[in-house]
Amino acid sequence: MKHTLKKHKQWRGKIATRIVPRLKTKEDLSIAYSPGVADPVIEISKDKSLAYDYTWKGHTIAVVSDGSAILGLGNLGAEASLPVMEGKAALFKSFGGVDAIPIVLDTQDTEEIIKIVKAIAPGFGGVNLEDISAPRCVEIERRLQAELDIPIFHDDQHGTAIVVCAALINGCKLTHKKLEDLKIVVNGAGAAGSSIIKMIHALGVRDIQAFKRDGVIHRSKNDKYDFLTKELSEIVNPNQVLFTLEEAFVGADVFIGVSVADCVTSNMVASMNKDAMVFALANPNPEIPYDLAKQAGARIVGTGRSDYPNQINNVLAFPGLFKGALNVRARAITESMKVAAAYGIAACIEEHDLRDDYIVPSPFNPKVAVSVASAVENEVLNQK
Amino acid sequence: MKHTLKKHKQWRGKIATRIVPRLKTKEDLSIAYSPGVADPVIEISKDKSLAYDYTWKGHTIAVVSDGSAILGLGNLGAEASLPVMEGKAALFKSFGGVDAIPIVLDTQDTEEIIKIVKAIAPGFGGVNLEDISAPRCVEIERRLQAELDIPIFHDDQHGTAIVVCAALINGCKLTHKKLEDLKIVVNGAGAAGSSIIKMIHALGVRDIQAFKRDGVIHRSKNDKYDFLTKELSEIVNPNQVLFTLEEAFVGADVFIGVSVADCVTSNMVASMNKDAMVFALANPNPEIPYDLAKQAGARIVGTGRSDYPNQINNVLAFPGLFKGALNVRARAITESMKVAAAYGIAACIEEHDLRDDYIVPSPFNPKVAVSVASAVENEVLNQK
Repeated sequence: MKHTLKKHKQWRGKIATRIVPRLKTKEDLSIAYSPGVADPVIEISKDKSLAYDYTWKGHTIAVVSDGSAILGLGNLGAEASLPVMEGKAALFKSFGGVDAIPIVLDTQDTEEIIKIVKAIAPGFGGVNLEDISAPRCVEIERRLQAELDIPIFHDDQHGTAIVVCAALINGCKLTHKKLEDLKIVVNGAGAAGSSIIKMIHALGVRDIQAFKRDGVIHRSKNDKYDFLTKELSEIVNPNQVLFTLEEAFVGADVFIGVSVADCVTSNMVASMNKDAMVFALANPNPEIPYDLAKQAGARIVGTGRSDYPNQINNVLAFPGLFKGALNVRARAITESMKVAAAYGIAACIEEHDLRDDYIVPSPFNPKVAVSVASAVENEVLNQK
Repeated sequence: MKHTLKKHKQWRGKIATRIVPRLKTKEDLSIAYSPGVADPVIEISKDKSLAYDYTWKGHTIAVVSDGSAILGLGNLGAEASLPVMEGKAALFKSFGGVDAIPIVLDTQDTEEIIKIVKAIAPGFGGVNLEDISAPRCVEIERRLQAELDIPIFHDDQHGTAIVVCAALINGCKLTHKKLEDLKIVVNGAGAAGSSIIKMIHALGVRDIQAFKRDGVIHRSKNDKYDFLTKELSEIVNPNQVLFTLEEAFVGADVFIGVSVADCVTSNMVASMNKDAMVFALANPNPEIPYDLAKQAGARIVGTGRSDYPNQINNVLAFPGLFKGALNVRARAITESMKVAAAYGIAACIEEHDLRDDYIVPSPFNPKVAVSVASAVENEVLNQK
């Protein structure tokens, strides 16, 4: 049996429950359960917000999946997604101190999923959506955020986007470029790609070229696009040119790939602007290997891999983001909170410590979740 | 602020999560999360039952409520039910080692509840329904058990019933009566009462008189009854007499009340058979106070209260029942498993230790959950 299977069999779940109160005597039971529990019940029935004071709601989220897009493995269903959701829950607890409960759903119907998550929401302080296929995931997230008053976050969309933005912020410090002057090429406009495009736009980047399987995103193709790509077409390709990917690389400052292995060549990287940044995030094999991109002249290279420098790892974002959102009882995750999270990650490396191969902190740096949470909290408090 | 509220505010939830694997290094993460988690994902996608091996499913249940009948407090909604569900989850863990997750639902529609519980079922090894009003709770439980292949149990119905049956079993040992000869009066035929009637019938009791607010259950009233009372009318009142509650007491061996405070008088108890047993379970004030029932001549008296002997406390039943059901991966909770659980509780007191004021074990007796689990396991294995 493979080592990974052996370990999973030994764990039988990557999270379990832990009892908080002492339950050793009749008196203990009479406070934590009947009859004492009637007091918080009555208080909450009069003011629902007191659930944050008297229950786990203030530090507990649901990690919800329908198993329709598990890792890079595809649509394998609810049960198969459970090991991933448990892993995610363990990361939430380990890195952010956030209690997270895996909920895997035996339906892939968008309306059903929305209805179910709304129904279970009273017991949770937030919802992290996970491994739900695009573009359904976007609609599910938006509808839930519109119809619920707790933070909703689809990590596959925004987790990578936040960390890429942190890398861009620090990359600009190192290369003395300004975000608003960058020319950026994004390949891939699914769940992660679309959020990256929107977030770099929110960061101030103006010149974005985005590519999907059928080529550059261009308003002339709007009648063939789904609602998400249509939205993107409004903020990319400012001069409405029908570039090829190769053409778009010429003179670009940044390439961000969330697409497929080996679709970028050395020549393409070599054609980029001075001090180019390449974020080749396809997993497990990037759009261009780390070493090849460096040899081709890219100054800063990041991938999704832990065995190379500058790993773009969402664990830098989601634990601190929810930690902060829960701490201030945010009612939503907004675009500006995500931007704040990106700056919170970036700030974990002092400017004089930045190097080409060290623009994002290690996932094991304990400062990260604290810095992200605090940036998010400030953003929410400033909005109020 | 009341002490109970202070404690709940200090706990902020009566259960929390605990991380099972070590997550300290890149290697740890690569086994518990990406890329290693792909192995159990793929295995489970080929055989769903492997979720019991590779995830928390084999030891974790959902504790589900819609808040429609919280304790004796009424319909106070989802948020208000959360402190009770957390308490229940803590009891499951503390007494049975079962991990239990509170899920409170923002809907009280029977079909919606069934749909939602079915949808979240893949991630759980069982479902404990709680504080759902009758008779909806009966339909919800039956439908879920028919449509899912994991154990479903509505504790408000069967928890008390199992413990009352354990008390009856031991009461019969002490008084040298046989279950099949008992004449039993039950007052109350809602969630708990109906299950008690069915379980004592399953135990072999033949002469049962049951009362609801509108008097004795009698087949002549069938067109006015809901489906549940109609079912009960088939197994009670063997001679189809239109008794009053007072008349039914005359010569009865056992009274079981799950009704309202002070509806039973000393005279009624005095009219019972020799070695009478009175289980006055209305909460917090019983149908007749413990001392009064004893003075009136009842030999064995049990109540729901922890400050008197013979407390009929469901915590004797549910932790061990689910522990056993999960251990053998039972696909349902059956009538015979509940009966086995009752015998498992009863067996925790050696026959020579039985006394009139000690016919059920203490909830803090650590033997109970083990004995119940083992009785339930044997029953399931014998059925197979």
